[in-house]
Amino acid sequence: MQELKEKILKEGKICPNDIVKVDSFLNHQVDVHFLKKIGQEFKKRFEGAEVSKVLTIESSGIAIACYTAEAFDCRLVFAKKGVSLNQSEDFYESKVFSYTRREEYPIRVSKEFLGKDDKVLVIDDFLANGAALNGLIDIVKKSGATLVGCGTVIEKGFQPGGKSLREKGIRVESLAIIESTDEVNQKITFR
Amino acid sequence: MQELKEKILKEGKICPNDIVKVDSFLNHQVDVHFLKKIGQEFKKRFEGAEVSKVLTIESSGIAIACYTAEAFDCRLVFAKKGVSLNQSEDFYESKVFSYTRREEYPIRVSKEFLGKDDKVLVIDDFLANGAALNGLIDIVKKSGATLVGCGTVIEKGFQPGGKSLREKGIRVESLAIIESTDEVNQKITFR
Repeated sequence: MQELKEKILKEGKICPNDIVKVDSFLNHQVDVHFLKKIGQEFKKRFEGAEVSKVLTIESSGIAIACYTAEAFDCRLVFAKKGVSLNQSEDFYESKVFSYTRREEYPIRVSKEFLGKDDKVLVIDDFLANGAALNGLIDIVKKSGATLVGCGTVIEKGFQPGGKSLREKGIRVESLAIIESTDEVNQKITFR
Repeated sequence: MQELKEKILKEGKICPNDIVKVDSFLNHQVDVHFLKKIGQEFKKRFEGAEVSKVLTIESSGIAIACYTAEAFDCRLVFAKKGVSLNQSEDFYESKVFSYTRREEYPIRVSKEFLGKDDKVLVIDDFLANGAALNGLIDIVKKSGATLVGCGTVIEKGFQPGGKSLREKGIRVESLAIIESTDEVNQKITFR
């Protein structure tokens, strides 16, 4: 997606540990008009696919998933991290390791909101090691729903998540794939 | 907002500890078409107010804040909870006690995204004790921005948050105010 690549080049910052910060428009400050275009791009990429639910994980996936669900005219479900008092007792659970927080945490989706008749598009902001997507895919499997595929805004092509998912036969659409980053010169190369 | 009240009566569940669960459309599964109406309702309630940023807190505020920012044609910023490796070093911080998770946590907003020229509308899903809103208001103050007011989808009128904020002269618009709940009969009474 050309407009996304331009936005990443213009507003993105490369930080230590290969972190690409795009928090001016994607995951801290949010440019909702731009996210609407991202939602429509996912709709185009998965054109013809029947999607009954968009699934993501709190927090940075939610805004993107809103506009994707809008494009597909369906509901969005976001998996909750950790344990909360007002969570229902009947849920699908998986485990995700966060590389930015350096801890493993459970993710949960109420059984009410995902079932065998659902056709699920999994959405997230970043794809690096694939930890979050794998957790979400595990939840889709546990629910008996059909996985349509995964859509991510930015894939770090130099990390193994995307390759590993595609080798399993999962359809992954990333709107921008970063081939390499150069922190010293603040240079990003796309695939 | 009549349509919201009807949706709460139809889909809401009253759980122990006065918890009103509306996770079929608001904060686990999300009905994006309905949230769009909620965003437009906030726009109507704050008609004429100049809003340059919508501020909320991850996670359940994000979807609501997206559609509110869309209605006001501005950007949304969501405060981050806790500490993350890829957070910028220059942020405003406040502390919030979560009654559902029974712990205090820091919330942070990068200084880049909030400043003295901003006119901020603070948005959240629930208003009960006002802990999250007070944390967000504290961040608005620290940034030097102007607080336009607070918009919440559901206010628990029997808890002290809303009254306390209004007594401080803060404009609070809640789209549905619950006067009382009756768990045994699953009955909700609105103010």
